[in-house]
Amino acid sequence: MTPFTPPTADQLLAIRTNAGIDELAQSERFAHAEPDLVEAIVEGVGQFAAGEFAPLNRKGDLEGAKLENGVVRLPDGFDAAYKAYVEQGWNAIASPVEHGGQGMPFTLACNVLENLGAANMAFTLLPMLSVGAIEALEHHGSNDQKAMYLPNLVSGAWSGTMNLTEPAAGSDVGALRSVAEPIVNGPHAGKYRITGQKIYITWGEHDLAENIIHLVLARLPGAPEGSRGISLFVVPKYHVNEDGSLGPHNDLRCVSLEHKLGINASPTCVMSYGDNGECIGELVGHENKGLAAMFTMMNNARINVGNQGVQIGERATQQALAYARDRVQSARAGSPDKAPVAIIEHPDVRRMILRMKALTEGARALLYYCAGQVDRGNLGDEAAKARSEIVVPLIKAWGTDIGVEVAGLGIQIHGGMGFVEETGAAQHWRDSRIAPIYEGTNGIQAADLVTRKLGLDGGEAMVTLFETIAREAASEYALAALAMDCAHVARWMRDEASLDDRLAGSVPFCTMAAITVAGWQLMKQAEAVAAGAAPELAATKPVTVRFFLDRIVPEGAGLKAGAVAGAELLYALPAAALVG
Amino acid sequence: MTPFTPPTADQLLAIRTNAGIDELAQSERFAHAEPDLVEAIVEGVGQFAAGEFAPLNRKGDLEGAKLENGVVRLPDGFDAAYKAYVEQGWNAIASPVEHGGQGMPFTLACNVLENLGAANMAFTLLPMLSVGAIEALEHHGSNDQKAMYLPNLVSGAWSGTMNLTEPAAGSDVGALRSVAEPIVNGPHAGKYRITGQKIYITWGEHDLAENIIHLVLARLPGAPEGSRGISLFVVPKYHVNEDGSLGPHNDLRCVSLEHKLGINASPTCVMSYGDNGECIGELVGHENKGLAAMFTMMNNARINVGNQGVQIGERATQQALAYARDRVQSARAGSPDKAPVAIIEHPDVRRMILRMKALTEGARALLYYCAGQVDRGNLGDEAAKARSEIVVPLIKAWGTDIGVEVAGLGIQIHGGMGFVEETGAAQHWRDSRIAPIYEGTNGIQAADLVTRKLGLDGGEAMVTLFETIAREAASEYALAALAMDCAHVARWMRDEASLDDRLAGSVPFCTMAAITVAGWQLMKQAEAVAAGAAPELAATKPVTVRFFLDRIVPEGAGLKAGAVAGAELLYALPAAALVG
Repeated sequence: MTPFTPPTADQLLAIRTNAGIDELAQSERFAHAEPDLVEAIVEGVGQFAAGEFAPLNRKGDLEGAKLENGVVRLPDGFDAAYKAYVEQGWNAIASPVEHGGQGMPFTLACNVLENLGAANMAFTLLPMLSVGAIEALEHHGSNDQKAMYLPNLVSGAWSGTMNLTEPAAGSDVGALRSVAEPIVNGPHAGKYRITGQKIYITWGEHDLAENIIHLVLARLPGAPEGSRGISLFVVPKYHVNEDGSLGPHNDLRCVSLEHKLGINASPTCVMSYGDNGECIGELVGHENKGLAAMFTMMNNARINVGNQGVQIGERATQQALAYARDRVQSARAGSPDKAPVAIIEHPDVRRMILRMKALTEGARALLYYCAGQVDRGNLGDEAAKARSEIVVPLIKAWGTDIGVEVAGLGIQIHGGMGFVEETGAAQHWRDSRIAPIYEGTNGIQAADLVTRKLGLDGGEAMVTLFETIAREAASEYALAALAMDCAHVARWMRDEASLDDRLAGSVPFCTMAAITVAGWQLMKQAEAVAAGAAPELAATKPVTVRFFLDRIVPEGAGLKAGAVAGAELLYALPAAALVG
Repeated sequence: MTPFTPPTADQLLAIRTNAGIDELAQSERFAHAEPDLVEAIVEGVGQFAAGEFAPLNRKGDLEGAKLENGVVRLPDGFDAAYKAYVEQGWNAIASPVEHGGQGMPFTLACNVLENLGAANMAFTLLPMLSVGAIEALEHHGSNDQKAMYLPNLVSGAWSGTMNLTEPAAGSDVGALRSVAEPIVNGPHAGKYRITGQKIYITWGEHDLAENIIHLVLARLPGAPEGSRGISLFVVPKYHVNEDGSLGPHNDLRCVSLEHKLGINASPTCVMSYGDNGECIGELVGHENKGLAAMFTMMNNARINVGNQGVQIGERATQQALAYARDRVQSARAGSPDKAPVAIIEHPDVRRMILRMKALTEGARALLYYCAGQVDRGNLGDEAAKARSEIVVPLIKAWGTDIGVEVAGLGIQIHGGMGFVEETGAAQHWRDSRIAPIYEGTNGIQAADLVTRKLGLDGGEAMVTLFETIAREAASEYALAALAMDCAHVARWMRDEASLDDRLAGSVPFCTMAAITVAGWQLMKQAEAVAAGAAPELAATKPVTVRFFLDRIVPEGAGLKAGAVAGAELLYALPAAALVG
């Protein structure tokens, strides 16, 4: 597997141009995000990721996480790398200063994850999931809970998990059946006895952190059916004493690990809570408001998954580039001398490499645009908040889709060697395939786009976005036309289409919309580079942007027919008639 | 893994409508391909595949082929299934009658492979590769060689392999370095001593057949450099005595098996010939004409690989359908009763299922159209031969691309369960990924389309094809428009574009062209069904065809910009500047 080289220059360009970090630093809250510090963080985490996380990526795939007598073991090297990660303070970048964090913008937290995940996607799920636990406690925990859990979660000494899914409750979280019984007497009075089984719990068990803080959704006795009867609980692996020291093991355990297609170093656990009736947890926030609490974290979690598409795209592109430069095969077609050349000299290999770069850079531009809007929203900018909410399903769905596509092109460039596991090209493709599924399938992202997000700001926010792009991209015909198409589809969905019709066209529309916003943000990158930003990208950026605008944007227009085709044909046959 | 149900009705429709089997049966050569017999073959091999090959698919993936002391072992059950396959005569369907074959059209050989491969893609590579050896000997072998090898190859008692690739000779076969020294004296006088190492030899070693007949490309002493200095040799695993009995083991061995992403039950061998200087082979055909001999088989081999896209598409669709009907999750959006439904009732799951069906049926229509043109070509119809040659890269490239796409949608429909290997959905995706690579990468198919195939019939054959489609599809606006786009691109490539420009646009053009021809052939299926053919498809076929024409065909139009964008941008930067 090719070593990982952090794409620092392109990341800094996106952080400056698409997230607008300098503008964010003009706020009081983010005043410390000064250019020098931002550069130091981006460079520092890139170096760290390349040096500590990347060398473990292949090993993690080959050896995987293993469950031994109830304890999950990772391959040699993971423990030391995680300790170094905690010691260098990378886990604390965007967490609140009052709990030991550095209080930097979300934009920079995205960059930390981007570098770590490009180096080692499976490993990076550990800090990525901890972020969710931190945010849950930060926004919904009591002061005591914050004091007890946050400092160690923020530092990374402890890790966190999110426990939503059960066998019968996947996309429909409201169907979950885990139970929390209030404890009235005894030492745990005021707490809850948790019982239930959860599946797909990422890093649900491991021995890299000193404690694991599980955030668990369960039902109180007599709670309403469905999503309105779900409460959130904090359930530590080891009880925490008043003085902060660790007490006995709680009554919870990892029953088994899933045998997965990829991300083998990330233990995906079946967790059992309360086998002996002694699993103790505390309520976080209000009774029956657990799902609402989850939703407050969901946007960032979805952005973080979209980020994984960028990560895999970057890593797969670097690997394919190295191979294409190195592998000599066949003369250039039409060349008089018949001398074999590196395959990167063949037109279609060039096309694939540029497509990989253009898609990855486009997704990165979209990612940091989205992150910048989140940061503005957190500063109180309501329009930016709405904008961020529209863009979240785009980066989650399209970002992860292009991750799979780019990793697939990476295999293709390797030819037969791509299908052989030895090269590592196949690992990127296998790893990439989870991202369109978890944290809300891409179909659910698209549904969110054409329902809740379409209605934001009285139905104006989305149309306004596309009209703005069409205006700003007036000199880029294909992009302007695609933006107008998106505005047209959005208006049709908002004003005329039935709910079924909207859902029937949701996925093609989501892809069109993402290509549009990514193309727009790439256009801004090209303008910034032309104006002197990022001199080290002065040669390459115009090429990848042109590739995106001239070849990928028109593909988006091909999706319009599917976006407005409606649901009637989908239901022309009853399900039973749809035989293979 | 869901059991395999052979899609007999859709196959028969394609064999009748797209291949035109009844017309073929009017020729003397194929007079025995009467409707009843055709139906018996299609039904029979479907039942056989479902009963014998399909149950081994998951097992083959989990246990894989293993190399033990130089012998490749397959999981239990493969041996018995292969014996049954041979005994029932399926291997002999399209082979010449004079060597024990049934002399049926290639179209029916495609159907045998389609059923077997949908049941078990990895296993079916064994008979699929044998076909290449049979064709090589049939067309280029001496009468003695035919008599010695063909009867057992045709029955399937022996299997065959194709040995082209070497570490430095992949896509560029002409770079190979294996050597064949003429033997002047002794018992092997007139034969050749073969020395060299070959990689990626599918089913190069195994114990299911009594003998393995390797077709090996190598160089004679003093042969010209490159592809004009390559000769073809037949090299049996066991020497064959004059009386047809087996002699001693030849000096060849399987050195190792590749650890691959998929098709784990298909042993992909590194083969070593002549470690002890005693590997004996015979020249097949003329000296230095080995590559030309290979090319005569290449078209059918490429069709057979395109067929694998249909196979995986069918199997993945059946599995996703079964899951989507079974898995209950969430109420239908907007439904008043909030009762959870099978996920197939959700609009986007319907869309995915219909997309899987439409792509698979479209690729099947294209496959049998291509096969029917091959059969007409073999009957002496030169226009059909040219047509088949144009369509071969389309079915190979697009057929295998949609195989990967459909298998990916199959994972997506399974949600989290799709990423867990236990369901088998992931296996289809892993298995599918080799098909765009081997037998000429899809990039090489596209290059063939815009170079050699574009020039057929003085450059008229391709343009005529698209103009014919545009005319016949006049009432289908999107299809007619796409066909005109294809004609336009073909004319531009033929008359104006440089070789680099053609190659730069080759892959998008190849996809556009394949969608066009597949859509046209689906339209013919819909017409046939409307006229009373295949009453069991009367409800479903119009729906899948409409889905294809209204939603997939417009996506093809989105590729035109990339097809005509030219090579200039691809070479705007030197390779060294294309850093990640």
